[in-house]
Amino acid sequence: MKIPVLEIFGPTIQGEGAVIGKKTVFIRTAGCDYQCSWCDSAFTWDGSGKDDIKMMTANEIVTELKAIGLENFQHVTISGGNPALLKQLGELIDILKELNLRIGLETQGTVWQDWMLNIDDLTISPKPPSSGMETNYSKLNEMIEQLTERVTNGHVSLKVVIFDDKDLNYAKKIHTKYSSVPFYLSVGNEDLTMENDVELAQKLLQKLDWLVGKVINDPEFNDARVLPQLHALLWGNKKGV
Amino acid sequence: MKIPVLEIFGPTIQGEGAVIGKKTVFIRTAGCDYQCSWCDSAFTWDGSGKDDIKMMTANEIVTELKAIGLENFQHVTISGGNPALLKQLGELIDILKELNLRIGLETQGTVWQDWMLNIDDLTISPKPPSSGMETNYSKLNEMIEQLTERVTNGHVSLKVVIFDDKDLNYAKKIHTKYSSVPFYLSVGNEDLTMENDVELAQKLLQKLDWLVGKVINDPEFNDARVLPQLHALLWGNKKGV
Ligand code: SF4
Ligand code: SF4
Repeated sequence: MKIPVLEIFGPTIQGEGAVIGKKTVFIRTAGCDYQCSWCDSAFTWDGSGKDDIKMMTANEIVTELKAIGLENFQHVTISGGNPALLKQLGELIDILKELNLRIGLETQGTVWQDWMLNIDDLTISPKPPSSGMETNYSKLNEMIEQLTERVTNGHVSLKVVIFDDKDLNYAKKIHTKYSSVPFYLSVGNEDLTMENDVELAQKLLQKLDWLVGKVINDPEFNDARVLPQLHALLWGNKKGV
Repeated sequence: MKIPVLEIFGPTIQGEGAVIGKKTVFIRTAGCDYQCSWCDSAFTWDGSGKDDIKMMTANEIVTELKAIGLENFQHVTISGGNPALLKQLGELIDILKELNLRIGLETQGTVWQDWMLNIDDLTISPKPPSSGMETNYSKLNEMIEQLTERVTNGHVSLKVVIFDDKDLNYAKKIHTKYSSVPFYLSVGNEDLTMENDVELAQKLLQKLDWLVGKVINDPEFNDARVLPQLHALLWGNKKGV
């Protein structure tokens, strides 16, 4: 079965979460079961990117990675949308592993796939109230339970993007519930259309300062990590970097 | 034996390296066997902070940590200067561990101490040519050899601060030599006296962009991670934050 791909780009660096700063190539799949109010990849599901979707086989994707130059990266990030909608990613993941590539993948935690057991850096990113989405805790519980051993081996982390105090309360609930899973707080970007990169970076740093202040004063976040989105600090709202 | 302490501050977040974004309290010790040209803590060794040095017992330090509030952090970073000059840190480290605190420590890798085997997040940060210092490779080899098991267990990383292309070549040499040790590249701050935080952040982000560009195009850095100094992005050249 083919995979709906919106873009393959890189190498660049992973801008957030557990492998922040690592050189990686992104494969962005189309389709999402959510419609977050602040989604920075809405073109993957709102129809605006429809004409850019390529239906690709796993081998075609690998051919594209080879064209980029396999010698120049050893990490691939599968991103969306929600790539966990795609059962057929299993074949691609197997081939990437045979090529000795390390694989990162991000999903909001709504759909289980057996291939998650083969992801090296799996980021589960449940969405806080500001997204307008409701968390399905039974699905999330189930997913994290199935990943218990992967958590122990350092392959899984949780990340919550924060826009406001309500989001922070939500994050606290998630972190407390799944206290054994490494936990990251990430600063949300409210200005998805701002074209002035300098101004955007300043706003994001102010927001990071706010978030750091909250975490510093809250014992329930002693074990959390607070990070910016480096790509937004560096390249603003540009796509494909 | 007492410990020469220059400042104890926090909780704040760790701004760089392997535990970037983690809530921590800093204990900064006085004294260094180096004099790096761009040292951002020169007051620890150049005489300018002499009157601020307090000679403290391990218990006195712990009393100060308790005053900060042990319930509000679970990570302590011992920084310098070069804390590895102080054999007597062993006692403090033992007490911190009994208190269930996780301990980070940064050193340039010139002096071995047995207590290094008890550090949870040990950052060895050899200094590149721009510092004006010479690396003693036999000392560094010895240190990393003695830490082999700690490396395997994820307690050790290497970090090189980068100012220019020569530094990058040096970093490559270090990374290649110790390829099993997780490796971080950090953007150096050239403007230690700049008071305009916004302008400084912009300069640091430009520098990060430059460094990311270099790493992206260099297969020898496939496994390195590139990070900013978050504290400099957030708070400029202020001390004690
Ligand atoms: S889950 Fe992710 S891709 Fe889907 S709408 Fe939300 S932010 Fe966008
Ligand atoms: S080793 Fe560290 S503290 Fe010592 S002079 Fe160099 S930068 Fe400063």
